[in-house]
Amino acid sequence: MKISVIGGGNGGTAFTGYLIHHGHQVSMYTRNPEKVAFFNREPDIYLSGVVNASVKAGLVTHDLGQALAGSELIMIASSADAHRHLARQMAPYLKDGQVVVLNPGRTFGSYEFANILAESGCTADVTIGETDTLIFTCRNHEINHPIIYSIKKDVKFACLKPERTQRTVELLQQLFPTVQAVPSILYTGLTNIGMIFHPTPILFNFTRIESGQTFLFYKEAITPMVASFISHIDEERVAVARRMGVEVETAMQWLLRVYGASGDTLYDAIQNNPAYNDVYAPKSTDTRYVWEDVPTGLVPIASVGDLIDVDTPYIDTAINLACMLYNVDFKGTGRQITSLDGIHGEPVLLRQ
Amino acid sequence: MKISVIGGGNGGTAFTGYLIHHGHQVSMYTRNPEKVAFFNREPDIYLSGVVNASVKAGLVTHDLGQALAGSELIMIASSADAHRHLARQMAPYLKDGQVVVLNPGRTFGSYEFANILAESGCTADVTIGETDTLIFTCRNHEINHPIIYSIKKDVKFACLKPERTQRTVELLQQLFPTVQAVPSILYTGLTNIGMIFHPTPILFNFTRIESGQTFLFYKEAITPMVASFISHIDEERVAVARRMGVEVETAMQWLLRVYGASGDTLYDAIQNNPAYNDVYAPKSTDTRYVWEDVPTGLVPIASVGDLIDVDTPYIDTAINLACMLYNVDFKGTGRQITSLDGIHGEPVLLRQ
Repeated sequence: MKISVIGGGNGGTAFTGYLIHHGHQVSMYTRNPEKVAFFNREPDIYLSGVVNASVKAGLVTHDLGQALAGSELIMIASSADAHRHLARQMAPYLKDGQVVVLNPGRTFGSYEFANILAESGCTADVTIGETDTLIFTCRNHEINHPIIYSIKKDVKFACLKPERTQRTVELLQQLFPTVQAVPSILYTGLTNIGMIFHPTPILFNFTRIESGQTFLFYKEAITPMVASFISHIDEERVAVARRMGVEVETAMQWLLRVYGASGDTLYDAIQNNPAYNDVYAPKSTDTRYVWEDVPTGLVPIASVGDLIDVDTPYIDTAINLACMLYNVDFKGTGRQITSLDGIHGEPVLLRQ
Repeated sequence: MKISVIGGGNGGTAFTGYLIHHGHQVSMYTRNPEKVAFFNREPDIYLSGVVNASVKAGLVTHDLGQALAGSELIMIASSADAHRHLARQMAPYLKDGQVVVLNPGRTFGSYEFANILAESGCTADVTIGETDTLIFTCRNHEINHPIIYSIKKDVKFACLKPERTQRTVELLQQLFPTVQAVPSILYTGLTNIGMIFHPTPILFNFTRIESGQTFLFYKEAITPMVASFISHIDEERVAVARRMGVEVETAMQWLLRVYGASGDTLYDAIQNNPAYNDVYAPKSTDTRYVWEDVPTGLVPIASVGDLIDVDTPYIDTAINLACMLYNVDFKGTGRQITSLDGIHGEPVLLRQ
């Protein structure tokens, strides 16, 4: 299969190496010219983890037109706050029949992506879909040494247009058999757990990060108060999902299922989860735990809450705090959902 | 003069001892029965600081009716979040001609006090006024050893009914010559600097306090972000005051004037103020920096902003945070100003 991978970070390099290793023709786009130069000079990608092999990178470019030309599948492996920008840049180059997959979509990434394409004048009949999580657990050891620790077992996938989900998931399963179809992007977007656990501990430990303190992200930054605040944010997400007709796991249930954590409260479950023992807080307030998770997680949930009359005071307060601490209008730049069309699988309306 | 002092804490004991020393007949009310028993057993009050003397306490009681009977002047020296409760309790006992002074009123204490008296059925013609700060800098060394470090030089005073300010300030000046009349409670209430400096560092260092960390309140809790947030809160206060026709000092100007601090930013001025060197943050989140300063400072400013169409997004966010972290409806329990009558010196309308 001819595939474009958009993004040259942890996910993008892992996807590129893995897919080449499995016989596909892959072009990789990165916005970083030094990375392009590096791979043009040293095209070897050394895979380890679930695959131990070295492969030759194909086309590595910062020219999106080149990167996208002729691909059946376009795997976007950037952080979700780059989706808007990528959609705008890709709009002129996309062709009928191409499939764009956001890895992951965070909350309603496909909706945003389709809206921006339409706004940007793209009329190609492109299929847009999203996973609920990055398919790999992976990290780059060095720029060309991706380590794929695991291929996740339980990856959900939906297309913005649900009638296209089945045939698209069949295409993806040729590459990643663990990907499973779910009925709509409500199921991928409303189970985004990152926005639940990431921004709040940063916002409430901002002074510690500013002061250069070293502390554990889950075990120390999440004090009883932060855990309580997170629980309220999570209740609001679950309430929005329920009103949309979707039963989602609570963060607590997720902790119990994924990690086998135990405890009566979210605070206890986090404290009792050994997987969090060594996870340190970011060394800087300049972290994607805010830059990514606020505009592509909290903002769209709050804006859907607005549309369907579910109050989200804790999420609103977290967003306001982020706007004030970062001096950024995350409400304006984030995923404001202005219509439920598209999200329910109806034709996407151009945002106003 | 026959005077009632309401409150047996730092301020109340200092007032009581000082006024007795100056020949007045003072009854002291404290809600604490152990304190009543203590003074009944050991009536000596040992003053030090600006006065070095011992005096015999007069009536010390937890019976408000007894404490108020026959007094010309009632000096309230409780924390401001107790004013509502005190007004309700005092309503049945107040008599025509009595003068009630809130030390200090925080923001619009006189307005609240008068409203609660009216709500509680008090029809006595009582004069109500407020200072902008406690007249003494003082601390109790022990329960009966008040130290008066200084009598403040620049204490502002206004009555809720401005036409009564002059004669009331003349009464007060017999006791405390440094008290000065200002045109209205806008001048005492909108210069409340405690609400600017106190709650925000608590809210943004909540996890450090929860974790039992020891750190300096001004020098460490006020990081650049906290200082920036405080500056925004202060701008909102100054904007509300300006729309009400009152030019107030900014927090920065206040720091420069009161402490001779220097610096280009609020953060720098705080860092450069030696008076803040040894001031530690509270050891517990259960602090009057929130319990007092949110409902009697931030809430009334925000509610006046609402009435006169001055946006106060930073103050609103701080109030929301306090409500969420303390699980208390500070907006409901705090000083919601529902009418500008009274604050401008017009007859006080009963709150709805």
